[in-house]
Amino acid sequence: MTLSPHCYDDASRAAVYRAIYERRDMRHFLPRPVDPETFRRILQAAHAAPSVGLSQPWRFVRITLPALRRQIYELVQLERLRTANALGERHAEFLRLKVEGILDCGELLVCAAQDGGTEEVFGRLSMPQMSLASVACAIQNLWLAARAEGLGMGWVSMFDPQALANLLKLPEDVQPVAVLCIGHVAEFYPAPMLTLENWRSARPLKELVYENTFIPASTDEAAEHISDKSPLAAK
Amino acid sequence: MTLSPHCYDDASRAAVYRAIYERRDMRHFLPRPVDPETFRRILQAAHAAPSVGLSQPWRFVRITLPALRRQIYELVQLERLRTANALGERHAEFLRLKVEGILDCGELLVCAAQDGGTEEVFGRLSMPQMSLASVACAIQNLWLAARAEGLGMGWVSMFDPQALANLLKLPEDVQPVAVLCIGHVAEFYPAPMLTLENWRSARPLKELVYENTFIPASTDEAAEHISDKSPLAAK
Repeated sequence: MTLSPHCYDDASRAAVYRAIYERRDMRHFLPRPVDPETFRRILQAAHAAPSVGLSQPWRFVRITLPALRRQIYELVQLERLRTANALGERHAEFLRLKVEGILDCGELLVCAAQDGGTEEVFGRLSMPQMSLASVACAIQNLWLAARAEGLGMGWVSMFDPQALANLLKLPEDVQPVAVLCIGHVAEFYPAPMLTLENWRSARPLKELVYENTFIPASTDEAAEHISDKSPLAAK
Repeated sequence: MTLSPHCYDDASRAAVYRAIYERRDMRHFLPRPVDPETFRRILQAAHAAPSVGLSQPWRFVRITLPALRRQIYELVQLERLRTANALGERHAEFLRLKVEGILDCGELLVCAAQDGGTEEVFGRLSMPQMSLASVACAIQNLWLAARAEGLGMGWVSMFDPQALANLLKLPEDVQPVAVLCIGHVAEFYPAPMLTLENWRSARPLKELVYENTFIPASTDEAAEHISDKSPLAAK
């Protein structure tokens, strides 16, 4: 098998995998400001994301007013209670989980998607939801860059999107996608917090890989090299 | 300003930014197989993505049958012609662009989202589209890992999702998100192909950053440190 001549050297490749495996959805932050230059670098990394038809649909609203931060926090609390009610028997267990760090994080960023409308049909004619996908790629870039900078980030999607849009006076073609908490952390969780808190276990990759059709590939040859042993750079 | 004690060393941090800035949406591939171990590593990196409520909604269908690959290619051609018709005066210009590398790439992977339904309300009660966002984060991980391995990847979203679902016999709760072309490339584009081909120019970050409300922040202090100078590791 030919390896690629464009492959990064071992240390660089390991660093990329390290960020991918050490990235965590953080909810615990230290109330310490984020260095502006670092913040600029991670936003620039988000902006380097792929986007459908080069539409760059991401919009970033930096929240600097304490009163507005508090209002966003309250929106999330409302939705948290709605979620608890919808969960039935896991209601109390859910309410014990920390689901956001909005009041503590150094930077609060609302990330939104602006719909290009009928002029932007490249890759979106049959798949209009690709704008959201592009914004999610930008957020993942932001997350990995933040991890490399030693900053934690948490993606909060527990809010009524229309209420948040009203609060930030977003135009009709702009949909909120995420409330992002970004900031210093005492430590990164060694595993996803929802696993550590026994909320849910992760599934192994091999259960999610198929070959040619939606029949699990775990019994055929294709799955042989999709094992769950530790990858190259996972520690 | 305090920098984080969890920050990676300069070389590791630069490697993460390098993958972020050198990642390209590739359409030109060499018809050469992908090393199975490398393919396993990049899939494992995708699987390390964040997901709403740890739902892991991504599903990967590896296409190994040449006839099926050809059928997927034909679906994309149909949608390409529909897109060209919808583009009006840019019709001919669009048809000159290469929009996929399906028949040439070493590995063809269909990526789909499985909807967790009413049982999975964590972070999705008011934002059901967060499953798609999680799958997009997994695809971005895959993309960055592939770049570090020296492999190109292209995300094709030009297809009728129902036709592709029928072709792969996907259950009703599974939606196709992407046809991913993965493989060896002669070289990576030095800039997004749609920029090189004069299809569309990228916008500077500062036009997409706001403060507290949806009024461009470019005139206030907040925008001061969101300039478009070269970031730390962009070359």
